[in-house]
Amino acid sequence: MRLRDLKTIQERRKFLEKKTGISFFPNENFPDGFEIAQEKNCENMIGVVHVPVGVAGPILLNSKSASEEIYIPLATTEGALVASVNRGCKAINQDGGVSVYSENIGITRGPVFKTSGLAQGLHLKQWVKDEFSQLQRMVVSTSSHITLIKVDFQISGKNIYMRFYYDTQDAMGMNMVTIATQELVSFIEDRMKVKCTSLAGNYDIDKKPAWLNFISGRGRQVWSEAVLEESTIKEVLKTTPSAIHDVSVSKNLVGSALSGALGFNAHFANVIAAIFIATGQDAAHVVEGSLGICTTEIVDNNSLYISAFLPDLPVGTIGGGTNLPSQKKMLELMGITGGDKGSNGEKIAEIIGATVLAGELSLLASLAEGSLAKTHERLARGKVKKKI
Amino acid sequence: MRLRDLKTIQERRKFLEKKTGISFFPNENFPDGFEIAQEKNCENMIGVVHVPVGVAGPILLNSKSASEEIYIPLATTEGALVASVNRGCKAINQDGGVSVYSENIGITRGPVFKTSGLAQGLHLKQWVKDEFSQLQRMVVSTSSHITLIKVDFQISGKNIYMRFYYDTQDAMGMNMVTIATQELVSFIEDRMKVKCTSLAGNYDIDKKPAWLNFISGRGRQVWSEAVLEESTIKEVLKTTPSAIHDVSVSKNLVGSALSGALGFNAHFANVIAAIFIATGQDAAHVVEGSLGICTTEIVDNNSLYISAFLPDLPVGTIGGGTNLPSQKKMLELMGITGGDKGSNGEKIAEIIGATVLAGELSLLASLAEGSLAKTHERLARGKVKKKI
Amino acid sequence: MRLRDLKTIQERRKFLEKKTGISFFPNENFPDGFEIAQEKNCENMIGVVHVPVGVAGPILLNSKSASEEIYIPLATTEGALVASVNRGCKAINQDGGVSVYSENIGITRGPVFKTSGLAQGLHLKQWVKDEFSQLQRMVVSTSSHITLIKVDFQISGKNIYMRFYYDTQDAMGMNMVTIATQELVSFIEDRMKVKCTSLAGNYDIDKKPAWLNFISGRGRQVWSEAVLEESTIKEVLKTTPSAIHDVSVSKNLVGSALSGALGFNAHFANVIAAIFIATGQDAAHVVEGSLGICTTEIVDNNSLYISAFLPDLPVGTIGGGTNLPSQKKMLELMGITGGDKGSNGEKIAEIIGATVLAGELSLLASLAEGSLAKTHERLARGKVKKKI
Amino acid sequence: MRLRDLKTIQERRKFLEKKTGISFFPNENFPDGFEIAQEKNCENMIGVVHVPVGVAGPILLNSKSASEEIYIPLATTEGALVASVNRGCKAINQDGGVSVYSENIGITRGPVFKTSGLAQGLHLKQWVKDEFSQLQRMVVSTSSHITLIKVDFQISGKNIYMRFYYDTQDAMGMNMVTIATQELVSFIEDRMKVKCTSLAGNYDIDKKPAWLNFISGRGRQVWSEAVLEESTIKEVLKTTPSAIHDVSVSKNLVGSALSGALGFNAHFANVIAAIFIATGQDAAHVVEGSLGICTTEIVDNNSLYISAFLPDLPVGTIGGGTNLPSQKKMLELMGITGGDKGSNGEKIAEIIGATVLAGELSLLASLAEGSLAKTHERLARGKVKKKI
Repeated sequence: MRLRDLKTIQERRKFLEKKTGISFFPNENFPDGFEIAQEKNCENMIGVVHVPVGVAGPILLNSKSASEEIYIPLATTEGALVASVNRGCKAINQDGGVSVYSENIGITRGPVFKTSGLAQGLHLKQWVKDEFSQLQRMVVSTSSHITLIKVDFQISGKNIYMRFYYDTQDAMGMNMVTIATQELVSFIEDRMKVKCTSLAGNYDIDKKPAWLNFISGRGRQVWSEAVLEESTIKEVLKTTPSAIHDVSVSKNLVGSALSGALGFNAHFANVIAAIFIATGQDAAHVVEGSLGICTTEIVDNNSLYISAFLPDLPVGTIGGGTNLPSQKKMLELMGITGGDKGSNGEKIAEIIGATVLAGELSLLASLAEGSLAKTHERLARGKVKKKI
Repeated sequence: MRLRDLKTIQERRKFLEKKTGISFFPNENFPDGFEIAQEKNCENMIGVVHVPVGVAGPILLNSKSASEEIYIPLATTEGALVASVNRGCKAINQDGGVSVYSENIGITRGPVFKTSGLAQGLHLKQWVKDEFSQLQRMVVSTSSHITLIKVDFQISGKNIYMRFYYDTQDAMGMNMVTIATQELVSFIEDRMKVKCTSLAGNYDIDKKPAWLNFISGRGRQVWSEAVLEESTIKEVLKTTPSAIHDVSVSKNLVGSALSGALGFNAHFANVIAAIFIATGQDAAHVVEGSLGICTTEIVDNNSLYISAFLPDLPVGTIGGGTNLPSQKKMLELMGITGGDKGSNGEKIAEIIGATVLAGELSLLASLAEGSLAKTHERLARGKVKKKI
Repeated sequence: MRLRDLKTIQERRKFLEKKTGISFFPNENFPDGFEIAQEKNCENMIGVVHVPVGVAGPILLNSKSASEEIYIPLATTEGALVASVNRGCKAINQDGGVSVYSENIGITRGPVFKTSGLAQGLHLKQWVKDEFSQLQRMVVSTSSHITLIKVDFQISGKNIYMRFYYDTQDAMGMNMVTIATQELVSFIEDRMKVKCTSLAGNYDIDKKPAWLNFISGRGRQVWSEAVLEESTIKEVLKTTPSAIHDVSVSKNLVGSALSGALGFNAHFANVIAAIFIATGQDAAHVVEGSLGICTTEIVDNNSLYISAFLPDLPVGTIGGGTNLPSQKKMLELMGITGGDKGSNGEKIAEIIGATVLAGELSLLASLAEGSLAKTHERLARGKVKKKI
Repeated sequence: MRLRDLKTIQERRKFLEKKTGISFFPNENFPDGFEIAQEKNCENMIGVVHVPVGVAGPILLNSKSASEEIYIPLATTEGALVASVNRGCKAINQDGGVSVYSENIGITRGPVFKTSGLAQGLHLKQWVKDEFSQLQRMVVSTSSHITLIKVDFQISGKNIYMRFYYDTQDAMGMNMVTIATQELVSFIEDRMKVKCTSLAGNYDIDKKPAWLNFISGRGRQVWSEAVLEESTIKEVLKTTPSAIHDVSVSKNLVGSALSGALGFNAHFANVIAAIFIATGQDAAHVVEGSLGICTTEIVDNNSLYISAFLPDLPVGTIGGGTNLPSQKKMLELMGITGGDKGSNGEKIAEIIGATVLAGELSLLASLAEGSLAKTHERLARGKVKKKI
């Protein structure tokens, strides 16, 4: 008897209890509708982990997709994170909120083909360009929610890499584009007599930190900004604009430069991971979603201008983990339900951009004020719970 | 009334239901002992998200920490992942299992100080080297579970960055090292009359993808390897050693090179994210944990040698999310309970290294065989469930 | 009296002899026409350095620009380089020569503007796209040898970066594009009421190693390839295809990956520097020109396929140092005289691509055979001069 | 008859004149002592290229190696470069000169060995650590000018890479360390029964831009700094401290970050290339020498603090091109003759660090003032020659 031959969670648990000697929690229950997870999200399922969700905000978001106050669910096990983001929201709201803008670059899939050499590779590149509208039609036929935007190429010896960018509306879309790209690949193989070595040739480049995604973008790109008055920074964040700016330059810019980083920021990843898990995004995409840069400037009246740029945010509001009951609820908390021709994908991207900015502001301020260690000592050890 | 003034999950839920119009699941329950989450892991807590956990394996692990078959819990919402890892385990086990080795590099914290200029910066660097054993004693005094291993420096203008490496035994340790580094910083500020601009100057570099971590390591480093016979690859993975090797070179090496990646692998991030979430690791560390390289070679008798190197794995078995009930259970499933002077930290790192290798093998094989799209179509859409 | 007030080489030499106590070579002379250097290439000129030029080849080049045998001048002070390239040419010629292909990506200039914030930045981006044909007309008016190809953008906070790509025919073109971009900048400043912070905002990115140039290309891109029979490799290179391939994978791919390199090659830089100096290219562009990847494969009959890709080759055949007499002569040696609507720029790029491949082949073979140290010992110490 | 069978420059010239139809300059002459080039620096020699040398400075250098005014020879064909550096020197001198510090990291060679697998690789790593003093003794025996400083490792699958760092005193040292490493490799192969795949496995990493060299250093590391008063900047540089600082942040930091650069500077490469060629350094090392970061700050009394950090400067004052007559003369111009137990190597490194800073200051000021295009128009086209 093997694990994979068992049909139910209970059977698998019993099997594992016998094999390993542990005992599972007997009375664990799942929200209504959770059964779908076994069909679509997870093989050999034995249960769940419960990841705590705290709420930060509201944050006052000004964007094309929403001009409203939004509460943000953060799934995290890192004490102080929710409190920190919350404090950032408070400061930002006090001075008018955060402005957010986004662009749908498109999710990518990047097959690699083996040619007979450079001549065929370069010919194939030209042929794909020439046949592009034909390829677009083929893609549309695979789903009513997908279109092919553009294609980039890279050639090295007998390998030709193609990076197809797709608009997948409100879905993150990796499954859709895998299927669509398979169609394109079969067509290209058939017509051009080349062999696809791999449907995914790391020129996508999916779930790996990469300059290609930083520079050319992937998924959705988001920019956010806010201006904080000196008095707000003093009152809410207990520090000064210039102290925050000093941390920002020496840490986010120079420190990251000296470390060979692709992240010129304080902790995009914390916020990205927390929202991604709360809302059922693919957690492996935290690698990409956390790329980006946060910069500050001292502006008129000694105010602080702060801005974040996220070049590569692969997110969705339908499909994958977003369909699970508690994750879906968290999307609803932000006013997002299912798909809506891309506008919900845009909205979640912009909310993330806003939240990331609140997180940056608050952590930079903590570091500037010198309270980081104290806060962690208090919160992580559960001693005292106070505003940070 | 503001969210942060409320004291209980129910109060917060009511507040949010009123504000946003959604209704939370009424009868959600948590495992025993989950209350701790509100104290230590998550402020403004309103509940949990349930992340499905599937089990892959067992995988036959040969390492210093364990020579046994281990079942691996994977928390994921990405259909096909568990099945894919499972298939990799099966192939690897059939040919003797996976060998894993690890080293404890130490978790780092990297403060930045502002000096009067290069002369003071270089003097400070020398002084810290000279006083290093004094610093080590100070660190030990902050906790019985922490020691200071070494320190690296980087200087740019008036900024001096120090990268302190700490052994934190079975804890991932970021909180511990934040507190310890605060001690060191206060001492240095006091004795050398310099000001610390930021306790964390991105020379740590925490939760950002960075060459510094790839090159110098962070947390634990893990190497894993396996040899697969041609017949096993044909039978279990439905392809050939040379087809896998071709994908490995053109995707993991050349494709990643052309993309400016820090990940020369197929999908470390998928496995890292799934184990991290299942076992209560800090999910933002997926960014670092997924760095690394996977290489293959054709060896004697047309067998396939495959190996993975993870330079930066910040993991723990105590503290943070590992203390939560369902996460703790998942650790127990792998035979890990609490802390044990570093040996449990080593064990989870080595299990992760083994699982990552199984994941690489299986995905490279799927790509080589050309079945990736088909698998996703089947599993993600819930049509048929078959072995992949 | 200051150095800069002196008018002639002799006056400056006398001044420096007095100041420093050295004595210049009295009877140094320059080739006819060298006087131009003082006017156009070098202020405060005191003479020259003589850089030895050796000739490698001929190499049998098959490309659109030339299908002929070409002798390649290499200006170098590194013993063994010319001999090594020469050996690579011999092997390549014996099996039919090298095939080369190129594309004119365009030289870039990347100004940065300061906007009032994201709204203005994004608006400016759209405006520049809308006015693009107007910008193209303005560029054409600055010179009959320049056209504007395309523009890319990046926005971070109040900074908007534009990367203008120009076709400058046979000139490397940095001066031309600086002047043209100044025109565009003035126009944009005037019409959009923004201030250009810097005409060159490192989004060009000129003379720095950068993934942007590797990924998006700059100047000309060149691909080259050759197939070497096993017998040729044994006879001329004293090793085997598989030994070369092993070095190629472990050094050019894995070794470079582990080092965080932008150069996945053995020594592009040696060949690039030598040809650049010999032909009067801007030597600081060696930084960019040496980016790229060299890969190998074992193909039919145990032959070796080898290929090089140079993504960023800023070269010219008119202007700058190419106008100096000895440098011009070296261009003539390769059959290149002045400008010819871009075809000469293409030709030199393709010759460089071919020579780089010969250099790679020969060094990889030396390393495979284990003779590198011996060769250096012999040649660099002037002991024996033998074929390598 | 083939080129390589000919014995003299004249014979080769005649041969090429016949083959290609060009005619070489008949009356070219070389400085006394240049014959050595044929023996040691360049095979198949046919003559030289004359690279114009201009002198910038003097620059007032304050360092351990020199506290004096130094004239700097710059070999360049890029109009405006000498004038620009000169202007930077003038401003810096006016406010007390430039302070420079350096450290000898050591030049590296990085062989790669093929092991039977991870167990042997990790064992070999430990063995090399254990035998390190034995290896040091072997290295000393290869030359009286070389010592082995330390060794780093990286392991991926069956490949183990070792990075040996050597002190080579006043020589750049690549030849010396190649020979010494060959000794070590033979010893290791013999004793440990492993095979060295390549004496140079790109973990050196030589002549490629790489984060490993930026982070760990290679050759000599240099830091330089200067403080400029507001009045000096206005008078000499025609701009303001804050305008320069704005360019510095938006170009050197943010612009480079967005471009995925390893050069966070304005134009280190221009100065590096010019001094390298003037003084007979290996021009391919411009790739490494130009890595680094330049930062600025506004300090007391609205002065500008500017600093440069060069992590990887492989330079020498003996061997290679430094022995050629005109190159040697250029070293003498800076007060450097031959070798002196490392102090001359240190001195040239520190002079380069100082000059790079002057170059940065001047170009940042030109960009801040908006005069870059105008200057290039004037100087490069030979119209007017004025101070820039």
